Amino acid sequence: MRRYRGDGSATRQTADIDVLQRWPGLVDSGVDQEFLAWFERRVHATSCSVDRIPLAQMRSWHLDASSGNIRHSSGRFFTIEGLHTRTTHGTVPEWSQPIICQPEIGILGLLVRKHHGALQCLIQAKMEPGNAKMMQLSPTVQATRSNYTRAHNGSATRYLEYFTDPQHHTVLVDVLQSEQGSWFLRKRNRNMIVLVEEDIAVDDGYRWTDVRDLRRLLRVEQLINMDTRSVLSCLPDGDRDEPDTTHLLRWFTEVKSRHEVTTRQTSLRDIKGWQYGPERITHDSGLYFDIIGVSVTTAGREVVEWDQPMLFPHGQGVSAFVVKKFDGVTHLAVQARFQAGVQDAAELGPTVQCTPSNFPRHPPRFLDYVLGAGADRVLFDSVLTEEGGRFYHSENRYMLIEAGEDFPVELPPDFCWASVHQLKALLRHSYYINVEARSLLACLQAVGSDR
Amino acid sequence: MRRYRGDGSATRQTADIDVLQRWPGLVDSGVDQEFLAWFERRVHATSCSVDRIPLAQMRSWHLDASSGNIRHSSGRFFTIEGLHTRTTHGTVPEWSQPIICQPEIGILGLLVRKHHGALQCLIQAKMEPGNAKMMQLSPTVQATRSNYTRAHNGSATRYLEYFTDPQHHTVLVDVLQSEQGSWFLRKRNRNMIVLVEEDIAVDDGYRWTDVRDLRRLLRVEQLINMDTRSVLSCLPDGDRDEPDTTHLLRWFTEVKSRHEVTTRQTSLRDIKGWQYGPERITHDSGLYFDIIGVSVTTAGREVVEWDQPMLFPHGQGVSAFVVKKFDGVTHLAVQARFQAGVQDAAELGPTVQCTPSNFPRHPPRFLDYVLGAGADRVLFDSVLTEEGGRFYHSENRYMLIEAGEDFPVELPPDFCWASVHQLKALLRHSYYINVEARSLLACLQAVGSDR
Repeated sequence: MRRYRGDGSATRQTADIDVLQRWPGLVDSGVDQEFLAWFERRVHATSCSVDRIPLAQMRSWHLDASSGNIRHSSGRFFTIEGLHTRTTHGTVPEWSQPIICQPEIGILGLLVRKHHGALQCLIQAKMEPGNAKMMQLSPTVQATRSNYTRAHNGSATRYLEYFTDPQHHTVLVDVLQSEQGSWFLRKRNRNMIVLVEEDIAVDDGYRWTDVRDLRRLLRVEQLINMDTRSVLSCLPDGDRDEPDTTHLLRWFTEVKSRHEVTTRQTSLRDIKGWQYGPERITHDSGLYFDIIGVSVTTAGREVVEWDQPMLFPHGQGVSAFVVKKFDGVTHLAVQARFQAGVQDAAELGPTVQCTPSNFPRHPPRFLDYVLGAGADRVLFDSVLTEEGGRFYHSENRYMLIEAGEDFPVELPPDFCWASVHQLKALLRHSYYINVEARSLLACLQAVGSDR
Repeated sequence: MRRYRGDGSATRQTADIDVLQRWPGLVDSGVDQEFLAWFERRVHATSCSVDRIPLAQMRSWHLDASSGNIRHSSGRFFTIEGLHTRTTHGTVPEWSQPIICQPEIGILGLLVRKHHGALQCLIQAKMEPGNAKMMQLSPTVQATRSNYTRAHNGSATRYLEYFTDPQHHTVLVDVLQSEQGSWFLRKRNRNMIVLVEEDIAVDDGYRWTDVRDLRRLLRVEQLINMDTRSVLSCLPDGDRDEPDTTHLLRWFTEVKSRHEVTTRQTSLRDIKGWQYGPERITHDSGLYFDIIGVSVTTAGREVVEWDQPMLFPHGQGVSAFVVKKFDGVTHLAVQARFQAGVQDAAELGPTVQCTPSNFPRHPPRFLDYVLGAGADRVLFDSVLTEEGGRFYHSENRYMLIEAGEDFPVELPPDFCWASVHQLKALLRHSYYINVEARSLLACLQAVGSDR
């Protein structure tokens, strides 16, 4: 019996792909020919096809009769469930939505070394089914617990032991951080950076790359994946002075105390305002996102096939920090960003964080400001994607915008100026800085690297 | 129609009460006659009766037909719901239980002043229905949002404005902290300490008390309430050097990553292993706790009556830190305490935190050690109660035990040595130190005050 394999929207990876055509930003990125040759080799070594398929036809995934949620037949990986939220914050007092639940903690691990005075990262060229351009640069290890305890029946995770048993090395970063609070329910991953002094064998899938180069590559659209950005943002900046975060933390406590957010997991079948069809789950308005099915086939050294549900966001998002110097010190306008899926109602997010098409009438505060900024105020502007293992063709435009004279020094109540140094200090702790803000903090270092 | 008013287990407060008989520890507490006279006056000024009544007869509270949970007819205050937990930690992989849900953030606020070189706190003598001895010493303000937005239709909360609008004063502490993770679902309160320089009018219900005296009074059984202990523990110790918490935080990240805890709110009617009767909710084994109803009448300047559900714990709990000096610096053996109701699976708790009667066969680690310690190793030992607004006749034996030569320097994986200074530094942030550990940190300062 021939299975129905999708609607023709397949993404395929073949040996014909022109890397510089697919990632034109690579031309001016400043990386050397050796790097380009390596990346081209990796793109051509992996063939991959991703087909959209109806939810009802996914192998090993089904709508569980008792819970009413989408789950894997093994009970592992993740589930898609319903979530009902009530809040006193914002203009929408309650809503229901599908949400991805993944209680296990994965490892996003980056190996680094010192090489001729430069810090180098061991990055990986990695295929993820949700990436429109398929291949991205990811950390050394990017593995859920299901991955590395072999629930996939796949091969062992390379270099995992440096993170699970790092005692002979120097751990520079080891902290739990949140991920997309509108799409994941209290998801968190362990962000780790481990410094090695020994020589280690490097497979062709991996490459030592200067942190400086990696930061420059953030300007190349859809190349550096979300996990790399998240981990890079946590790298300490070497300044050991502890900044005074008292004022910032008090403001944040006060904002959190002012609002209530209560959530309740429900059956996916019961969520109001959404259509659960055999093809996909979609909102009545056509906004926000769909839950779709994909069928993935990759062929490298071995052929691997699987199906899975993915969240397909509608419309390109915008995440932007407005940046301003006070007494010569760079500050960012952070927002207490309330989201249904975060651990404690709100985390510190960018000045603007939204999908503009979801707000046809009333654009969120400062959106017009950042989109309308003149070229001389745009420090960074690049379209990057979110987690390609869960999100299908997600696109976020990440921007750093210098504040003009017309930008208010006194911010509205949900906003506060924070120095980069303060935010770096808070990154030692979990759940202060959301994943979009972490991406932008990594991008801010790219701006520094240019100059 | 005469309403059934309880089973005879009423607690009544009358003018006949002998304060020194009820709180014998006051005799040797070192507080002066003026304080005793004030406290006696307060005890005699308030008459109060608390009767146990059947759940089904509570006025304004009912089992909601659609949600299956106990709620107030206004929809406010708190609800009692079901919670189903699965975890890879410990010996019980899954269970159901009733849990108190209170999403709103309350204020636990302490006003302090400097007076003749001493730091003084404005404490309140406050009746709470769950306290077996009725009256306890509480912070200046102890109010849920429902309280101070007047959902009770009661009088305005005295001194509230110092905490909601503190801009003319010095805010010493302002941080969200968790409460009992086995009884509350992600409950948190805003712990605040505000330093005032102006003279303020003090009602007879309140009294300026030296912090030193307050700490000594922690040794008096069932006198200083949980909220006072929690707020006191957050008071900075004046040492501005930031201790290095890197090792401690990495250990904590690693322990949290090793285990999964997933919870799901359910209907209270659906929880397995519990009997929902008209009188009370009780576990099949008779262990853990009951959910009961109480009817409260207080008469001071005005008569106030209300009914409410309460959680009635079975058996006295034990919360104990084992204390040891390393290079002259006091360290505590902290435990990564996994509990269903905390924000992120685990917080740092005492070395021992359990209700021994819940473990008839296999006592938790180090319980025998702390209970068997010789008198020369017992630095602190006092029975204190938990939140008297939600818990009925709860009792916890708080202990600080000096480690003997027989106590291991190398601790089991879920435990780690932490200095007091490290824990104080982490108290600037939310959800690191659980409420039992915070109580003990306040008690540890009492030990310091003795010497």
